[in-house]
Amino acid sequence: MLYDLVIIGGGPAGITAGIYAVRKKLKTLVIAKDFFGQIAKTRQVDNWPGDLGISGIDLMKKMESHLKSLTSEILAGDKVVNVEKRKNSFLIKTQAGQELEGKAVLVATGRTEKKLGVPGEQELVGRGVSYCTICDAPFFQDKRVAVIGGGNSALGAALDLAKYASEVFILFKGQTMVADECLQGLIKVQPKIKVFLQKNIIAIDGQGKVESVSYQDNVSGNEEQIAVEGVFINIGTVPTVDFLAGLVRQNEGGEIEINPKNNATSQEGIFAAGDVTDSSWKQFVIAAGEGAKAALAAYNYLNKLEN
Amino acid sequence: MLYDLVIIGGGPAGITAGIYAVRKKLKTLVIAKDFFGQIAKTRQVDNWPGDLGISGIDLMKKMESHLKSLTSEILAGDKVVNVEKRKNSFLIKTQAGQELEGKAVLVATGRTEKKLGVPGEQELVGRGVSYCTICDAPFFQDKRVAVIGGGNSALGAALDLAKYASEVFILFKGQTMVADECLQGLIKVQPKIKVFLQKNIIAIDGQGKVESVSYQDNVSGNEEQIAVEGVFINIGTVPTVDFLAGLVRQNEGGEIEINPKNNATSQEGIFAAGDVTDSSWKQFVIAAGEGAKAALAAYNYLNKLEN
Repeated sequence: MLYDLVIIGGGPAGITAGIYAVRKKLKTLVIAKDFFGQIAKTRQVDNWPGDLGISGIDLMKKMESHLKSLTSEILAGDKVVNVEKRKNSFLIKTQAGQELEGKAVLVATGRTEKKLGVPGEQELVGRGVSYCTICDAPFFQDKRVAVIGGGNSALGAALDLAKYASEVFILFKGQTMVADECLQGLIKVQPKIKVFLQKNIIAIDGQGKVESVSYQDNVSGNEEQIAVEGVFINIGTVPTVDFLAGLVRQNEGGEIEINPKNNATSQEGIFAAGDVTDSSWKQFVIAAGEGAKAALAAYNYLNKLEN
Repeated sequence: MLYDLVIIGGGPAGITAGIYAVRKKLKTLVIAKDFFGQIAKTRQVDNWPGDLGISGIDLMKKMESHLKSLTSEILAGDKVVNVEKRKNSFLIKTQAGQELEGKAVLVATGRTEKKLGVPGEQELVGRGVSYCTICDAPFFQDKRVAVIGGGNSALGAALDLAKYASEVFILFKGQTMVADECLQGLIKVQPKIKVFLQKNIIAIDGQGKVESVSYQDNVSGNEEQIAVEGVFINIGTVPTVDFLAGLVRQNEGGEIEINPKNNATSQEGIFAAGDVTDSSWKQFVIAAGEGAKAALAAYNYLNKLEN
């Protein structure tokens, strides 16, 4: 099946691109691992104009149902593992083994939580290890949990977890937190939260479920262990671009470089929008606007191909 | 009163910019003639992600109330007539005689309906002359009306009016319509609508209210008149920039040239977003995204000023 446009990603950029492409009557396929995006982790969204205070999940559900009311050409729950350039098209391979072809491709895969890369982490995902506090915090009622990281998202996660957990340990490798003063102030007055600085995580331990975290103290060099049932990793995100295998130019941080005028990448026929790009601000409404722009630019590109 | 940022415009770009600026704790003033934007003329909006089928007016009302819930620093119902550069700020004068000062200015004034520029037009606005079909069509139940123009918006206006009016006359100066085939087809099968091509409007006539339209036939040169109670002018739009008096670089069409990366204009301290800019597509969600970008760019600019 040869599509005009294959959109990869189900966040605000991908969904908005899908709405625009379908309304332009492009033969469009949207491939989405899920319909979340980073926003779904936000308990309350106050800057999506018109819907003050909506939850990130509710906002994404509204967007998903909008897209689905316009098209059924959606491949959900699968993940793109490779994009290959052909003569006049691109071949897209998915994890489930599907092969799809598009005259143009729109990458809106957003960002992925960074992994710690320590033993036990991968094995215990969903068994105590989590990258999404808003999704998983309620499972840790009256339990001890660790939060790894020292930025805004880590401190926000700790505050969220304190509503459920009996104790929350923040473990951070730096000498000082790197979060907003205001969040640091809230952390200080929350008695359930304890902060441990200069700790490098060595391993997450447990048989079938998380039982403890092991870390080395940067100052003493001693190895220590703390018993917890949950580990929430919040050490930042990276753009989700591995499947492109160097097909487009990326900046130092791995973000796809785009022409901000029309969201074209260095590879003719590939467009990109949203948090996966090198745009200066990672914001929901900006990602949505970029999705629309990229779809309209792809439409113009496809029209030129025909003529 | 010296503001950090004065936002001019109450459409999707201005409102979104306002939401972002206020949340960034900038001392912000939003000056809005109204809270409409071009979208308010759209009966049904299908491409604002998450709100399939919402009316343009309802969408703008949601956005307006979002902004108003965050700030009361809004000057509504007034219009900026001049912006003047001072040493470290801009002086903004309004029609009602207010003078305001901002360290930075964000222009989101959108576009204005083109005027015909014929006698009677200005005098009879609101007395039969209208630039907004969706606002005014219901007042012309069982009446005869003229639509001036031959593009998509003119034909759409004629179709809307045919639901109310007894007869709709489309008067267009061109030899053929310039609207989508699909709209032209709908016009043909609507018996209430009659099309007159190659007619140049000379005047709109009437004492206190519209009574007729006078036009010259391009072919015969004859002057003719048609009795109508309403005249709906749909001959396109121009960017609303007159008040800037050459302070920023504009393209041939009068649109403000922006750096698409951060919505900066050629004038340091002035940012622009939405349909008033030279961005390639005039779309609601793109305007909203640009409003956010411009506000965040203004925030960075102001931070640098301080340091």
